[in-house]
Amino acid sequence: MINGKPHVVVVGGGFGGVNMCKLLAKENVEVTLVDRHNFHLFQPLLYQVSTSVLSTDEIAYPIRSFFRNNKNVNFFMAKAKGVDQKRNVLITNHGEISYDYLVLAAGATTNFFGMKEVEDHAYGMKTIQEALAIRNHVLHEFERADKPYRSSEERKEKLTFVIVGGGPTGIEEAGAISELVEVMKKEFHHLDFNDVSIKLIEATGHVLPMITDDLQEYTVQTLRKKGVEVMLNTQVVGYDGKILKLKSGVEIPTSTVIWAAGVKAVDFMKDCGGECARDGRIWIDEDLLVKGAVNRNVFAIGDCAAFMHGDMQRPLPTVAPVATQEAVIVHKNIMKLIKGDNNLEKFHYKDLGAMATIGRAKAVVNKPKMTGFMAWCAWMLVHLIRLAGAHANLTVAIKWAWNLLSGIRLGRIITNIKLDSGKLTIPKVEEDNSKRNVNEGKPVHLGK
Amino acid sequence: MINGKPHVVVVGGGFGGVNMCKLLAKENVEVTLVDRHNFHLFQPLLYQVSTSVLSTDEIAYPIRSFFRNNKNVNFFMAKAKGVDQKRNVLITNHGEISYDYLVLAAGATTNFFGMKEVEDHAYGMKTIQEALAIRNHVLHEFERADKPYRSSEERKEKLTFVIVGGGPTGIEEAGAISELVEVMKKEFHHLDFNDVSIKLIEATGHVLPMITDDLQEYTVQTLRKKGVEVMLNTQVVGYDGKILKLKSGVEIPTSTVIWAAGVKAVDFMKDCGGECARDGRIWIDEDLLVKGAVNRNVFAIGDCAAFMHGDMQRPLPTVAPVATQEAVIVHKNIMKLIKGDNNLEKFHYKDLGAMATIGRAKAVVNKPKMTGFMAWCAWMLVHLIRLAGAHANLTVAIKWAWNLLSGIRLGRIITNIKLDSGKLTIPKVEEDNSKRNVNEGKPVHLGK
Repeated sequence: MINGKPHVVVVGGGFGGVNMCKLLAKENVEVTLVDRHNFHLFQPLLYQVSTSVLSTDEIAYPIRSFFRNNKNVNFFMAKAKGVDQKRNVLITNHGEISYDYLVLAAGATTNFFGMKEVEDHAYGMKTIQEALAIRNHVLHEFERADKPYRSSEERKEKLTFVIVGGGPTGIEEAGAISELVEVMKKEFHHLDFNDVSIKLIEATGHVLPMITDDLQEYTVQTLRKKGVEVMLNTQVVGYDGKILKLKSGVEIPTSTVIWAAGVKAVDFMKDCGGECARDGRIWIDEDLLVKGAVNRNVFAIGDCAAFMHGDMQRPLPTVAPVATQEAVIVHKNIMKLIKGDNNLEKFHYKDLGAMATIGRAKAVVNKPKMTGFMAWCAWMLVHLIRLAGAHANLTVAIKWAWNLLSGIRLGRIITNIKLDSGKLTIPKVEEDNSKRNVNEGKPVHLGK
Repeated sequence: MINGKPHVVVVGGGFGGVNMCKLLAKENVEVTLVDRHNFHLFQPLLYQVSTSVLSTDEIAYPIRSFFRNNKNVNFFMAKAKGVDQKRNVLITNHGEISYDYLVLAAGATTNFFGMKEVEDHAYGMKTIQEALAIRNHVLHEFERADKPYRSSEERKEKLTFVIVGGGPTGIEEAGAISELVEVMKKEFHHLDFNDVSIKLIEATGHVLPMITDDLQEYTVQTLRKKGVEVMLNTQVVGYDGKILKLKSGVEIPTSTVIWAAGVKAVDFMKDCGGECARDGRIWIDEDLLVKGAVNRNVFAIGDCAAFMHGDMQRPLPTVAPVATQEAVIVHKNIMKLIKGDNNLEKFHYKDLGAMATIGRAKAVVNKPKMTGFMAWCAWMLVHLIRLAGAHANLTVAIKWAWNLLSGIRLGRIITNIKLDSGKLTIPKVEEDNSKRNVNEGKPVHLGK
């Protein structure tokens, strides 16, 4: 209790966590939102940052801004490290926080399925830093390929872009890279674009598992028309930063592998005192309490939670609508518990359908079934409405309209950023002290 | 000669270099623009990126985009390392490039006047990476100060922001940080803002040396009204990352020092075969040829060049109009030399006046003399017109209007970026394994 009011601690400022706090803000409770980042990230548009369409600020929104007028909602920037359910305490890297009610909404991270070598060399697609790293890297590969002294093999390796995973992220990234290549064609006057290759690799026999067969087929055909090689039933077994190895024995020389093949809950979930599924998600009951919660005051929602009705084959998917719908029920249940009512509400998921863009001006939507430009307009509208920032909507709309009309994308800025982990080292100035003369009185563009 | 056409190599994609290439693009010459970055940076607005108003993509523009329709202009991403004037060769980290004519437009970098300790701990304000580093750091200091276990001394140190240098950059940065603090006040519900301190330190007795005394006085008064402590006649002698030492013996505890006190030419200039001034700028003649150029085919313009008429006291200032006006003359002189005409044009600088913003909705302009809101409108208009990108104008205009009306700034995103140099290490997750309980059943916001 804080000032005589129950203290609700929410871990994670994603779709679930922020909506949770917005609902609690109106109640007579004190709320502390804990996140290691100071921003809410609109993850569905990360691929647009990674391909130079949008900028960071347009898809990341300062968490504190949501709660300007809610003095009972406090933000605490810290990394959650565990939960001591017996003591009702959340452990963070900045100390412990006592709670009366705890909501775990900590989200998911990339799942490399234990392939350490791939993890070390491929790019994930879950954070703003990764999106910027991909942007930097892809743009830089074009610049490197354009150097006149490259061999044909080197150039092909640098211009081969492999995306692993046929879910929405993989589809959208592959489509967006194919659009980016169209822009590059106009500006690299001497590069041979026959050397460019975009490959989408999917382990199963179909892309976008949540939509119908004909929509899947439409998606694959559309990607192929855009020059993306779609490789179904293809499994990756290794990647050393130069050669991507397939289970079939085939080797693909490439310096760019983007991994969108799976997610798992953040590591923190295993230290929350609950039981976790194989992908690290914590099991929750139908009232959204963590299974076996000691004091019946620890809930979990969104990507970090595994929810399964009795008759389901697998837990609900890791998508935003699950998280936001769960937040509504947790809000109700916390208010019930505060009032001493133990008859908690049960969660029922309402599937709102799925959608994915396939490059510029094309998309698929399954509810209602739509393809092509109309689907793309629907996709655009839904994403603009859901985008958090007030005027981000406007500038994003302008950029999309402009991009549609002119194909221009202004974000093609190589900023030489290193990620904190040090893993994804983005280019330093490369030293090359050979005495080669790159033109010797001939054009510098000997690139082909 | 390339394909029978003279080959002009331009080093640097700043205001001088890009305008140079635009002029040459229409001529019957082959042009190679060399820059280690793939973008043109609109440096006058860097301070807005550093204070969360604008995003990277709005002030950085891909160089290749300028020359989409000019097949005779080729971009070569490389770091220039020196010039061998005898062999007519530019040396880069990607090999040598032969030229018929060379234009050095390599720009300037921060001048720490040999104070290594300051250089290691203060932030420069010349690159997009530095602006992002400042943004990350300043935002993070607020989050750190908000931790309830901080002592009052720690909190004050973190909330003391020192800007060194009373030129336009220092003035604009100080004003913009004071505006940022106003935004923070609305969102840190429990932080005591009396602990915030913004100091502008200037070694001489006046700010903005290029404008008249009364405008200088207006600038200082406006900053003071905005809560900036303006310290004139104050010299910095050291900074170790915690304590800023003044010549007077006074010590200021602060974790943020932004250095806008001087510029010098990039190091590369000393390896160009010319003679350099004390600040590293290469001396040029009135026809803008580098003094003593072996083959009368090496020009220099902009911040990297030192131009002085016979009757001048000091070289022309390092501002964009000098560079762009010089580009016009170099274009004419190169075309003359190509035609065998050795009667080169002489450069005469036309001073267009100076302007600087002082926080939101206030500015000073000296030609024609203006202050306050009108001056700010003039400043805004000039900068919008000069901004390179086509639709960046529009999104920047929207952000400025929005910021003026609502004070919102969306860029407050801490991205944990490390700079390539490794010098400006932006925060990792800080480990703090003490068992402190940050609330113990009390509010987590014990910050005051």
